[in-house]
Amino acid sequence: PSPKSSSSGAIGNPPKSESVLMTSRDGITTITLNRPAKKNAITLQMYEDILLAMNAASQDDSTITVFTGNGEYYSSGNDLANFTDNPGGLKLSEDGNLPLRKFVDTFIDFPKPLVAVVNGPAVGITVTLLGLFDAVYASDRATFHTPFSSLGLSPEGCSSYTFPKIMGPSKAVEMLIFGKKITAREACARGLVTEVFPDGTFQEEVWARLKAYAKNPPNAMRIAKQVIRSSEKEKLHAVNAEECRILEERVLSEECINAVLNFFSRKARL
Amino acid sequence: PSPKSSSSGAIGNPPKSESVLMTSRDGITTITLNRPAKKNAITLQMYEDILLAMNAASQDDSTITVFTGNGEYYSSGNDLANFTDNPGGLKLSEDGNLPLRKFVDTFIDFPKPLVAVVNGPAVGITVTLLGLFDAVYASDRATFHTPFSSLGLSPEGCSSYTFPKIMGPSKAVEMLIFGKKITAREACARGLVTEVFPDGTFQEEVWARLKAYAKNPPNAMRIAKQVIRSSEKEKLHAVNAEECRILEERVLSEECINAVLNFFSRKARL
Amino acid sequence: PSPKSSSSGAIGNPPKSESVLMTSRDGITTITLNRPAKKNAITLQMYEDILLAMNAASQDDSTITVFTGNGEYYSSGNDLANFTDNPGGLKLSEDGNLPLRKFVDTFIDFPKPLVAVVNGPAVGITVTLLGLFDAVYASDRATFHTPFSSLGLSPEGCSSYTFPKIMGPSKAVEMLIFGKKITAREACARGLVTEVFPDGTFQEEVWARLKAYAKNPPNAMRIAKQVIRSSEKEKLHAVNAEECRILEERVLSEECINAVLNFFSRKARL
Repeated sequence: PSPKSSSSGAIGNPPKSESVLMTSRDGITTITLNRPAKKNAITLQMYEDILLAMNAASQDDSTITVFTGNGEYYSSGNDLANFTDNPGGLKLSEDGNLPLRKFVDTFIDFPKPLVAVVNGPAVGITVTLLGLFDAVYASDRATFHTPFSSLGLSPEGCSSYTFPKIMGPSKAVEMLIFGKKITAREACARGLVTEVFPDGTFQEEVWARLKAYAKNPPNAMRIAKQVIRSSEKEKLHAVNAEECRILEERVLSEECINAVLNFFSRKARL
Repeated sequence: PSPKSSSSGAIGNPPKSESVLMTSRDGITTITLNRPAKKNAITLQMYEDILLAMNAASQDDSTITVFTGNGEYYSSGNDLANFTDNPGGLKLSEDGNLPLRKFVDTFIDFPKPLVAVVNGPAVGITVTLLGLFDAVYASDRATFHTPFSSLGLSPEGCSSYTFPKIMGPSKAVEMLIFGKKITAREACARGLVTEVFPDGTFQEEVWARLKAYAKNPPNAMRIAKQVIRSSEKEKLHAVNAEECRILEERVLSEECINAVLNFFSRKARL
Repeated sequence: PSPKSSSSGAIGNPPKSESVLMTSRDGITTITLNRPAKKNAITLQMYEDILLAMNAASQDDSTITVFTGNGEYYSSGNDLANFTDNPGGLKLSEDGNLPLRKFVDTFIDFPKPLVAVVNGPAVGITVTLLGLFDAVYASDRATFHTPFSSLGLSPEGCSSYTFPKIMGPSKAVEMLIFGKKITAREACARGLVTEVFPDGTFQEEVWARLKAYAKNPPNAMRIAKQVIRSSEKEKLHAVNAEECRILEERVLSEECINAVLNFFSRKARL
């Protein structure tokens, strides 16, 4: 179990967590999902730890923030135990919203260039959030999968807006509604991924590039991101709010409850 | 000549038409353009039959709706005889608008996943509407052609908005203004088409995939589509209204009248 | 030094400039950057000459307007001497805005199909403006480079809006924030370029195609462009205004001043 974070995200005070690591060097702060035995599935505690890490990264003196996973997977997404561990299936925040809403808002508002280093397969929320990143580098071992419909769920992470914008509706819907899993090369051709690297040289090539990028004037990069994001920030927050409103209904639907029960009964039989 | 439809689109009461067929099985309702001797060109009657079929499909118990063509062509688009068969060149609906406006609105508002199975060449309105579909599977024999300018006409089907969004203005304008005909592979690289299949295995591969997709929880798919569409539905209706307003002027322009006359005089000489 | 323009852009009265040429034939008006010894870098005078040429082209009887460069380069972009030649680093227009704002507005509002014939490497503003063109044909010798961050600057030419829309944020930001230079084939895959041609046959193939396109009915083409542009013209003007507001601050920043000084001191040492 990951320890509670001891920090409110102040500068130099990153979260002390085993499942979400945070390191900083060469002008780059890296947030690493570190639960490899569970394919880096994200627990409720990890959502909170990621938020703390994002807040710390937004204020430290790094110029670029990187998101990655430890081990074979980037992340298998939301830990489905989150549904069953909360009696009633749903835990709302103090403000009456899904915790997901604040989580996604943090990615919308993040003030520095945010880069995903996708080291392996990515699922669910860790795929949809990529539409809010500034660059996405992927190993050729990575795959991208958003099986919302089969779980009775609906798209989040602003993907209902960003995916059709990035790849056109005909390719976005195949992923978001029909749950088609795509390869790293397909994701790159569709514009979700910036560039794909052979797995053998992935880490070496990507980090060399990121270190070079981190040497650009920091204010220029931060302000360029602000200009780019400003033309749709309001829209993104509205989309996030609407997606969460719908999802709140979906997690209580019979389709979703049956799908989650099936998932765990299949696991139990193995 | 296709018989009048006898239905107002109520459930289980699809239009009785020879030129627009409607079948339902495996959770999929299929609407087929069936005028192969005329390359599935769409007559005024067929526009009405398609609307009735869409209304029926939106209310039946299928989970996915498919649009396709019978024979060698997907569709050669609007039957140009529609212009000459209406003295004055233009027939408005009772509400004073082009019938096209209501036709396109039906595609904007369609509540279930809508898939195009493009079995051969597609022209005009049957190409532009693809930007409103949720998935587009194409045979490698298919081509995509929108020769509006050479006919003195202007883009419709929301393509003036969806095409630049899907493929960027530099590729959209080449199709919409310069009338460049593109191949299925080009359309796929541009994001208009989801995936291309060899013609020999096209039907088999596409229908196997669609049957699998149709097994997803139906409410989840319907709601996911609603979330995706909601962020731009208002914009799409506004674009459709503006495109129809402009087109109403264009069909009465000298450029258009001369182009249509030339088309028929060329045909007559053959 | 290029002579002052003698014209206010009235029909048949193109600017008399050595560095910005204007010719008209076969229904196509061509504006050529003609400062090959300086890689077609754009001086303050050339910005004015281009505006005059654009105004003349918008009103003459051509149907298509083409933008191209003479020599090995398309253009190396804004001549950095523009910064140092103006004490204080910044010269505002009479209306208190950056001259850039009016310059970009002219591209947003241009009423006819506007085609870039990218004969070689393109840098900075001549790359970002491509997002406002209706077609972009490139030699396979062309490259596309927007090194704003390394100069302490921020994106302009509406690229903060058009680039993410065309190629998705993950590929747009790599160019606009990290300054990645891309090839013609990459730019084509990303949707910034319509089509790439081998350099040996580039001029021949492109001009044959343009001459054919120029034979389409001129009103139909002009009105189709108007329909396509109208759905985002207001947004584009707002983006341009915001980009110029930010850029006004950036050109006076320490990061920018240092970067420009370094550029000239490196040049002086060669």
